[in-house]
Amino acid sequence: MARIVHKYSLFILLSFMILLSYSTLANSKNINEKKPCKRFVLYYHDILFNGTNASNATSAATTNDTKLGNFKLGKLVIFDDPMTKDNHLLSPPLARAQGFYFYDMKTTYNAWFSYTLIFNSSEHKGTINIMGADMMDEETRDLSVVGGTGDFFMTRGICTFRTDTFEGAAYFRVQMDIKLYECY
Amino acid sequence: MARIVHKYSLFILLSFMILLSYSTLANSKNINEKKPCKRFVLYYHDILFNGTNASNATSAATTNDTKLGNFKLGKLVIFDDPMTKDNHLLSPPLARAQGFYFYDMKTTYNAWFSYTLIFNSSEHKGTINIMGADMMDEETRDLSVVGGTGDFFMTRGICTFRTDTFEGAAYFRVQMDIKLYECY
Amino acid sequence: MARIVHKYSLFILLSFMILLSYSTLANSKNINEKKPCKRFVLYYHDILFNGTNASNATSAATTNDTKLGNFKLGKLVIFDDPMTKDNHLLSPPLARAQGFYFYDMKTTYNAWFSYTLIFNSSEHKGTINIMGADMMDEETRDLSVVGGTGDFFMTRGICTFRTDTFEGAAYFRVQMDIKLYECY
Repeated sequence: MARIVHKYSLFILLSFMILLSYSTLANSKNINEKKPCKRFVLYYHDILFNGTNASNATSAATTNDTKLGNFKLGKLVIFDDPMTKDNHLLSPPLARAQGFYFYDMKTTYNAWFSYTLIFNSSEHKGTINIMGADMMDEETRDLSVVGGTGDFFMTRGICTFRTDTFEGAAYFRVQMDIKLYECY
Repeated sequence: MARIVHKYSLFILLSFMILLSYSTLANSKNINEKKPCKRFVLYYHDILFNGTNASNATSAATTNDTKLGNFKLGKLVIFDDPMTKDNHLLSPPLARAQGFYFYDMKTTYNAWFSYTLIFNSSEHKGTINIMGADMMDEETRDLSVVGGTGDFFMTRGICTFRTDTFEGAAYFRVQMDIKLYECY
Repeated sequence: MARIVHKYSLFILLSFMILLSYSTLANSKNINEKKPCKRFVLYYHDILFNGTNASNATSAATTNDTKLGNFKLGKLVIFDDPMTKDNHLLSPPLARAQGFYFYDMKTTYNAWFSYTLIFNSSEHKGTINIMGADMMDEETRDLSVVGGTGDFFMTRGICTFRTDTFEGAAYFRVQMDIKLYECY
């Protein structure tokens, strides 16, 4: 009899362990900020159309600055920009970034982005949708990956911006460190 | 005694089955691309305001094309469009689509959408928020359902576009196949 | 022997209870609309630039109304607005709201928002990204929280708008009740 009771208590212990491990899993969905399920670093290149560089330009302003402040507040730029794996403009693009940004502060340069990364290569087919604030004065800033399709079906995550170079209005380059935490 | 041991092993088996099934559920959140928890196909009708059709128009361009390319890059259109269950413009709308799109490529017609589907009927009350790239040259293209409210509380999913008709700038119709994978 | 069988049935019962509770958890991800994991109510203050109020203005229209209807359809406003904990404009802001809205209906005032709440205080550091329709005729309307960063890493939820005051084009104030259902 004692031996049977002993075995019972083992089962009880096992049951609680299962209970515990699952409640943990169910609440955290197993997400650890330091361990994305997929990650890649790409460089975004933006060459603004100035009226004469149509062959090189990858973006164009569709509204003008307002007169509120001196930091282009109100300027909205629509882009179809190449994304490369290193910081060379002429490297073969691994994706396109299509979307828009606009300047939104009267006291400093500050922008807001919403766009889609489009992958169409042998390695990846699908899209990643991103939105958020680009506080250009910060060394890095995080935007949200809010969805994905194709190889990135239903993904979510964080996209960290780091300004790589800023050559006036003509050309700027941003390193985008994309960390996905939901992969299916 | 042998019989008791036999029953014990049944329990052990059962425990492992539970363990296995839950760890699978917890990691995949039970999402299968082929099995949305909710799905509906609706038709989006867009009649662009041309200055004289105010009674019929459902959308208006608020910026002009830029001069970058010949494919309307920079044109931003704001819409409040009817969504119907079949492809007849005059069918009773099951939802409204409110949001915007803009053209974003210099080499072909290509657009980017962000909008809300608003349901307010006896069948459904609530909203679904969608964003993504509309690569018009593709037969179908997937956008992300990034959130929802009301009957669609916290939903996520995929919205597949298929051009149904394109009658110049005046009128176009898109079939939107909305597949939701998170339902609460 | 009868007593052993009795104990077995207790285990069977326990197993089914575990099974039941987990399948519920796994499907619902433990989300209850009435029990957000985090909640705060903030007030959004928007002072539109009119050409002469640059020192007070927090937003500016970057496009004009179209001529479709009489309800500003097509007007797109870019903002960097303070968020306060009560409805006093001059209370110390707990966050900034950066993004845009536009008017989108020809028959009534109705808007569409997409923006980022930026927290940078000792209490909270991080961002919350929000988008959705603002059906201004409704007493309350729900938008989607589609992502977050920093202290709000990967969050999702609902943001409920309630108009607090509307003083013509010059100034309006919206109560934003932000309920987060995914907290990590």
